[in-house]
This record gives sequence, structure tokens and C-alpha cells, in this order.
Amino acid sequence: MSLDIVSQKPLDRLAAALAADLALVGSMIRDRMASEHAPRIPQVTAHLIEAGGKRLRPMLTLAAARLCGYAGPFHIHLAATVEFIHTATLLHDDVVDESARRRGRPTANLLWDNKSSVLVGDYLFSRSFQLMVETGSLRVMDILANASATIAEGEVLQLTAAQDLATTEAVYLQVVRGKTAALFSAATEVGGVIAGAPEDQVRALHTYGDALGVAFQIVDDLLDYGGSSEVIGKNTGDDFRERKLTLPVIKAVALSSPEERAFWVRVIEKGDQQMGDLEQAMAIMARHGAMAQARADAMTYAAQARAALSVLPDAPLRAMLEDLADFVVSRIN
Amino acid sequence: MSLDIVSQKPLDRLAAALAADLALVGSMIRDRMASEHAPRIPQVTAHLIEAGGKRLRPMLTLAAARLCGYAGPFHIHLAATVEFIHTATLLHDDVVDESARRRGRPTANLLWDNKSSVLVGDYLFSRSFQLMVETGSLRVMDILANASATIAEGEVLQLTAAQDLATTEAVYLQVVRGKTAALFSAATEVGGVIAGAPEDQVRALHTYGDALGVAFQIVDDLLDYGGSSEVIGKNTGDDFRERKLTLPVIKAVALSSPEERAFWVRVIEKGDQQMGDLEQAMAIMARHGAMAQARADAMTYAAQARAALSVLPDAPLRAMLEDLADFVVSRIN
Repeated sequence: MSLDIVSQKPLDRLAAALAADLALVGSMIRDRMASEHAPRIPQVTAHLIEAGGKRLRPMLTLAAARLCGYAGPFHIHLAATVEFIHTATLLHDDVVDESARRRGRPTANLLWDNKSSVLVGDYLFSRSFQLMVETGSLRVMDILANASATIAEGEVLQLTAAQDLATTEAVYLQVVRGKTAALFSAATEVGGVIAGAPEDQVRALHTYGDALGVAFQIVDDLLDYGGSSEVIGKNTGDDFRERKLTLPVIKAVALSSPEERAFWVRVIEKGDQQMGDLEQAMAIMARHGAMAQARADAMTYAAQARAALSVLPDAPLRAMLEDLADFVVSRIN
Repeated sequence: MSLDIVSQKPLDRLAAALAADLALVGSMIRDRMASEHAPRIPQVTAHLIEAGGKRLRPMLTLAAARLCGYAGPFHIHLAATVEFIHTATLLHDDVVDESARRRGRPTANLLWDNKSSVLVGDYLFSRSFQLMVETGSLRVMDILANASATIAEGEVLQLTAAQDLATTEAVYLQVVRGKTAALFSAATEVGGVIAGAPEDQVRALHTYGDALGVAFQIVDDLLDYGGSSEVIGKNTGDDFRERKLTLPVIKAVALSSPEERAFWVRVIEKGDQQMGDLEQAMAIMARHGAMAQARADAMTYAAQARAALSVLPDAPLRAMLEDLADFVVSRIN
């Protein structure tokens, strides 16, 4: 618990530094999720948006814009855009994954139905496009439209890669870039673009968001085999039960003996899972150092993220973004 | 059969007049639905796009642009955009409606799964945004982003209005504008905008698309109580089984006796449907002239669509669009 308070600090400091902007983002989100004719839309959206999400992605946009000296109004639109895209993907993810819990609460598809989750997700996607059009920046729209396509492509790839023991680390990285890093890197990049930052800074912000996103997702996948459900708001072993090929599993499969491989074929490819299999999977991963290797990969990405920021102005917000990269991997240390 | 050949003529003439453009749209669609990493995306998309759809919406965009004298390349992007948005909504609709047939073939959610339909729909939405960004026209993006939001809002409204006998004709029209007319009117309007047409012509194109879309949907809803499954590629009585409040039902409910009302409460609100109930529903609608009234409404909208075109150049394409308005309602005459 005390460890948790310490490790929350980088996010809290960022939220404090961006408090005024975040309040405007919150107002804009509430304003734009309203629907005169279909009250179910704000109900479903509010369930998710007000569930205590950390607003990490909007903070990335706000911090990038402010760090690059932006003084206009449109970083608020872009932060709200990014949160709407994120919320829409969560709604659709929970339908695709048939999830029952998200952030420690019942999912929207459970409280209402899959139909509402699909359609309200579509509505939020459309709303996000309206918001980005209002900025009048074609480049921003291009970045966010590309990110949306990468996200959807990554999700489909994850669907077809699931249960396939031949999944490589390269495919895993493509899935991770789609499901997580594409929106992180778009969030930071558009902050720099709207501020009119020099090209090298815009590129650095993209690199930072991308590496941070990959580190974040590797950690998330590690926690699925280690964290308690209290800490991460989902159940340990979800990915195992859904037969997802995440990084520690891929690393362990690559080093497995024939007997161990037969185990993976049974539980992942055939989906024949029994009591004790999760513990057995974790024992195999431990035997081959798969968790430790995945942890080392996450730390490498976090270090890349931190290093990318060196071309940006040496300001308190830069230090907070650097600390954020460390914080993301501190969850597994 | 011979009637069907006659009534197809306006669409065939439009397709012939726009043949070169339509070929380019087809190439662009095939090009942009590709995915290097996730082959399931073009598989699912091709199943739907190559299923013999009439390409009505892209033809509206092409015809509007050409009628307004456009000679640039971007009407092709916009026609492909409109078809991608349409295809994405079909994929999500079939998940929401749990449909098994579309255009006389098994639906994608049946052939693959709901997950693929949700995610490939998201991918096509993103692709449509990329295409419209390439036109560089903020106004076009604004129109299409607004149309997307109206579509999603209409779908949610339809979800919450289903099974509710208190649904009014005004709510029905909002649903219809969302599910059909919003994309028709955006399709024609962006054709005029990309051509740089005068404001009165752009407004007229919007009005034409809107009225055409409403007429089209009323006719579709009427055919659900009248056409054979051969003609429309879906089963008669689908809306009845899904307890949807479409225009002929709303009109019949409003004029129903207490006994008839009890019937509607049982079959629509309680969903307790038995053999012979569809025929009973059609008998009540016939008794109150509900089908005839709905047919008259459709013809009024078609006439509005035709009339709106009077401010546009008096060219063969205009005559074809006028004939199209008549054709849309000819399906019920």
C-alpha cells in the first residue's frame, strides 16, 4: 500500500501540473458525450469514463503540447479526442473479449448489452472525429486517422494470433503497437504538432509515446501472470484463460522442452485447461527466465522513452514525463 | 421478373454514366481494404463488398460531383469513404441485430464471428477517415464526421425504441435519418462541396439525399411486411420478429382498438409471438390502411427529393437522379 502511494507520485505530479487543462478536458468530455435523443449513450460512456481511469492518454497530449510551449485552445480538443478513442476501443474490446470486469467494475456489455457497447463505441469514435476536425489541422487528423487504423488492425491481428503457438515476438510487438502504443504515440505526437514544435521534437514525442506504450503493455501482460486482482482491477490469469500469446508465454514456448511444449499445445492451442494449469504455466515460465526477460525488455523500452525526450526543452514537464517512463515499469519491480 | 428488369433501369443508367469513375472507386476500395498483417480484414470486407451491393451511396457522391462539374480526383476518395462507412455500419448492424443473412448470403458474423465483425468494422471506419483526410477539405470532413455521429446515435435510439409501443413517428424519423438518410445526404452533399458548387446547390443536394434516404428506408420497412425473400434478400417479417417499431406498425398502433392494442402489447412489448401472429399483424395494418399511408409518405419524400434538384444544372445526370427518386418508391408499387 505504501509502495503503491510512492509509485503513484509521477502520475499525481503530472495531474497536478496539468490540473487546469484536465478540468477543461473533463468538461469537454461530459459536454460531447451527451446525446439529446439517446440517453443510453451518456449512461454507458459515463460508466466507463468516470470509473476512475487515470486519464493517462489525455495527460500525454496536454503535457506534450505544454512542453512545446502551446498557448492555444486545441490541446483540450485533442486530449478529449484521445480519451474518446480509448474509451471506444475499451467498449469494443470488452465485447470481443467477453469481459465481465474492467477497472474493478462490471463491464458495460454486462450491465447493458453487447449491442449498446458496439453502438456507443461507434458514437464515441464519431465524436472523436468531430473534435479533431474542429482543430482545423490536417496533419493532426492524418496522425489520428492512421492511429485508429493501426489500433483496429492490431486488434484483428491479436484475434487471429490468439491460440497460435507459432506467434513470434515480432507479431506480438505488432499487436502491442496496435492495441496500446499507436494511441500513446499519436497522443504525444499531436501535442507537439498542435504546438507547432520543430520536426525533431515531434519525432521525439512520437518515439517517446511509442516506447512508453510498448513498455506499458509488456508490464500489463506480465502483471496478468503476477499482480493480484486488487492492484490491476482484473483477474490474474485472464490472458491465460483467453489463450493469448503474450510476451512471457512466447519466450517460454521458444525455450520449452518437448514435454513442456505438449503442455502449451494442450492449454493454448486446444484450450483444454484444468485446475493447476495456470500454476504449471507460471512454473515453466519461471524455469526459463521468461518473466525476467520480458521484464528486461520492458525496462529497455522505458529507457528508450526517457532518452527520446532529450531534444525537448529541459522543463519540469519533461522531468515528469521521464519519471512516468520509470513509473510504468516500476509496477513490476 | 420483367417488372424487376424495368425498375432496375434508373440504377443501371446511373452505373453506365459513371462507369469509369465506378471502376476507380472499385480499385480504391480493393486497395484500401487490404491489410499487410491481418488477412482476415480483406476476407471479411470482400465478403460484404463483393456480395452484389448496388453501390448506391458511392454513385450518389459521384453523380453529385459530376453534375456540379467536378474534374478533380477526390470524388473517388469520397465515394470509397461513403462505401466504407456503409460497410462498417452493416458489419456492426448484423452483430447488433444477430442477423444470419444479408443480401441473400450468410452474414460475416455467422461465417467468422462477432469479434471479427466488430473489429473489421472499426478498421473500415478508420480507413474511411484516412480517405477523407486525403481530400484536404475540412468541410467534407466536418460533414462526414457529423453524419457518422448521427448514424451511431440513430442506431442507439433504434435500440432503445425497439419493443416500445409509445414510439412516435417523430422518433421513427430520427431513427431513419440516423440509420439511412444521414449517409445518403452526406454522400450527395460532399459531392457538391468537393466540386465547389454554389451554396444553394449544396443545400439542394443535401435535401435530395435526405429525402431520398427517408423514402428508401420507409420502402425497406414496408417490404419487410410484403416483399418475398427472393426480391429483398432478407426474410419477410424480420422486423416483426425483432419487435421493431417501423412506420406501418406505428400507424396501425395509433389507430388500434383495445383488442388490437392488446395484440401489439403481447407480440411487440412482451415478445410473446406465435404462429399466425405475423399474418394477424398484417391484417390489422391493412384494416387501418397503415401500409397505404406509409406508402403515401414514402412517395411524398420521393417527390421532395425530385423537386430539390431543380436548382442543379439541367443535365442527363440530374434526370437520372430524379428517376432514382421514383425508382426507390417503385419497389412498392
